[in-house]
Amino acid sequence: MKPEWLYTPPKPLDEKTAAAARERQAQLTKPPGALGELENVAVTLAAAQGRERPRVDSVWISIFAGDHGVVEEGISAFPQAVTAEMVKNFARGGAAISVLARTLGAHLEVIDLGTVVGLSGVPGVVHLNLGPGTANFTRADAMSTDQCALALEAGRGCVAKARAEGAELFVGGEMGIGNTTAAAALACALLGESPERLAGPGTGIDKAGVARKAEVIARALSLHGAHFGDPLEALRRLGGFEIAALTGAYLACAQSGLPALVDGFITTAAALAAERINPGTANWFFYGHGSAEPGHVRLLDALKARPLLSLGMRLGEGSGAATAVPLLRLACALHNGMATFAEAAVSEKL
Amino acid sequence: MKPEWLYTPPKPLDEKTAAAARERQAQLTKPPGALGELENVAVTLAAAQGRERPRVDSVWISIFAGDHGVVEEGISAFPQAVTAEMVKNFARGGAAISVLARTLGAHLEVIDLGTVVGLSGVPGVVHLNLGPGTANFTRADAMSTDQCALALEAGRGCVAKARAEGAELFVGGEMGIGNTTAAAALACALLGESPERLAGPGTGIDKAGVARKAEVIARALSLHGAHFGDPLEALRRLGGFEIAALTGAYLACAQSGLPALVDGFITTAAALAAERINPGTANWFFYGHGSAEPGHVRLLDALKARPLLSLGMRLGEGSGAATAVPLLRLACALHNGMATFAEAAVSEKL
Repeated sequence: MKPEWLYTPPKPLDEKTAAAARERQAQLTKPPGALGELENVAVTLAAAQGRERPRVDSVWISIFAGDHGVVEEGISAFPQAVTAEMVKNFARGGAAISVLARTLGAHLEVIDLGTVVGLSGVPGVVHLNLGPGTANFTRADAMSTDQCALALEAGRGCVAKARAEGAELFVGGEMGIGNTTAAAALACALLGESPERLAGPGTGIDKAGVARKAEVIARALSLHGAHFGDPLEALRRLGGFEIAALTGAYLACAQSGLPALVDGFITTAAALAAERINPGTANWFFYGHGSAEPGHVRLLDALKARPLLSLGMRLGEGSGAATAVPLLRLACALHNGMATFAEAAVSEKL
Repeated sequence: MKPEWLYTPPKPLDEKTAAAARERQAQLTKPPGALGELENVAVTLAAAQGRERPRVDSVWISIFAGDHGVVEEGISAFPQAVTAEMVKNFARGGAAISVLARTLGAHLEVIDLGTVVGLSGVPGVVHLNLGPGTANFTRADAMSTDQCALALEAGRGCVAKARAEGAELFVGGEMGIGNTTAAAALACALLGESPERLAGPGTGIDKAGVARKAEVIARALSLHGAHFGDPLEALRRLGGFEIAALTGAYLACAQSGLPALVDGFITTAAALAAERINPGTANWFFYGHGSAEPGHVRLLDALKARPLLSLGMRLGEGSGAATAVPLLRLACALHNGMATFAEAAVSEKL
């Protein structure tokens, strides 16, 4: 049974407000277009928020964590225990995303969907215990139908909470040793690409390791290939708990009208899954950064996405998206705070 | 007579502190290198500030304004009155850089070096009245020796003030109708490039206008070409008051050990002039953004510079640099605030 809510249409962007915001941009004391992408960001945020003067003061960050059965194939540079260890690090404030959230004044929540060590009671972490990680997708479906539905629903729940708390921007992040392998497999299924083109070094495996990863993904594609016509089924068979949760969150963002700032390779795979499940969802996306993970550019291309930053980051956790938050805030400040030619008595273009 | 202070050697970066900062980066709870350029920024700031935990809380922005005699050749999309009008807009808080400075909590000062309308008494603006703009450099030297020396000294004075006030980062900006023409001419002289390759649309002239701009620059290069062996002389003959002030400021930053965040095309031309006058100056530069002005990339290449942002901005005023300030701050926050593997009890790479 497919969860019906996935197919509720995305909210349309407010084109009338977008036009008003564009008109305002044309009157600000600068040559037309001179603020580049910051102008587009302000106009799109205005359309998303339905107000000519958008704001992103209140930022909500949800980090989804889960383990991956495919790790037993030897595709990661870090031991699988790190997923749970990092969940604790998020909660204690020592991880990159913890520092970024604190610095940005953003709300950070951590959702443990299921790790091999079976965490419980970590202060500040929601434990959902969907299972001890996914199944090894070279031999079985990564998730059962129930697990996948629950993970999608977990993402939706976070967005509902974010909206209730007045969030103006949603940032999803992820943690899961092995999840570049799952994301690459899912990307191959959604894009019809070969594993050689989408497998990358992840947290830092060498060339032989990347070749092995591609071979592992190729086996999974052989096993599950008959089902890739349905993006939800591709997600269930190849994805991970955290990837499904992100997909659910992005779908809910678009349905409820909350702009989402997408992070790197793994979140963009989830974003593409969401767009394929429910076209139009991607109208609600901003893209924080282009990741150093080589497959990211192909996912971004498929989404016609232009990321704001390109700093060679490849950490995940939502860190690249969080790093881009100040750009959205500055885009709003400029749009809302600059004087017009008339207000400042500045002469216009000849 | 050349101002002797220009040739005082730049302060060396603190390599011992850089090594300690690199060592710290290697211990933070992330795969090595996963924060990309943010890691390099933190390490370079540490070396510049001589402290393993760098900060850029206190940011100083100096905007230098001046008019350009070459505007009578018809090379700008905006009337020359806009230079003075924008000086007032900076001071009243309506310009892009005013909004950015306010949002960033940065100190903003405006130095009017000389405009055609001869401003005086604009509240919050320092008026230096070096002349009613520069001379038309297709017919004469843009600046006299005295004017150039005073403009360089003005830049140095701003850096001295910034340091005295505890600034941790210097951002220079500029305003001057016609100054992409002056900057392109100076860049041609410093790089031995043709005007066709470095002239661009500036504030928005069309293709015919760009061709005219290149032709105007070609005439200036013919007139002054015998003197380009001396970068200071190239600056005096082809630059502008604000470009010379920026050059002086960058030289003083390197000499006194204050990191500078370079903005777009015009500031990078000044930065290259500073590096050519006193090699090693560029070790103190960060680069905020790659401008949409097509010649910028050649200046950046000459400085082996990798700008942090590439958002298609082309406003000047220091706006691209200011937009990048949050990235430096986040780089410091991550470097200083993340837990190490040992502190967080997270397993290291296999």
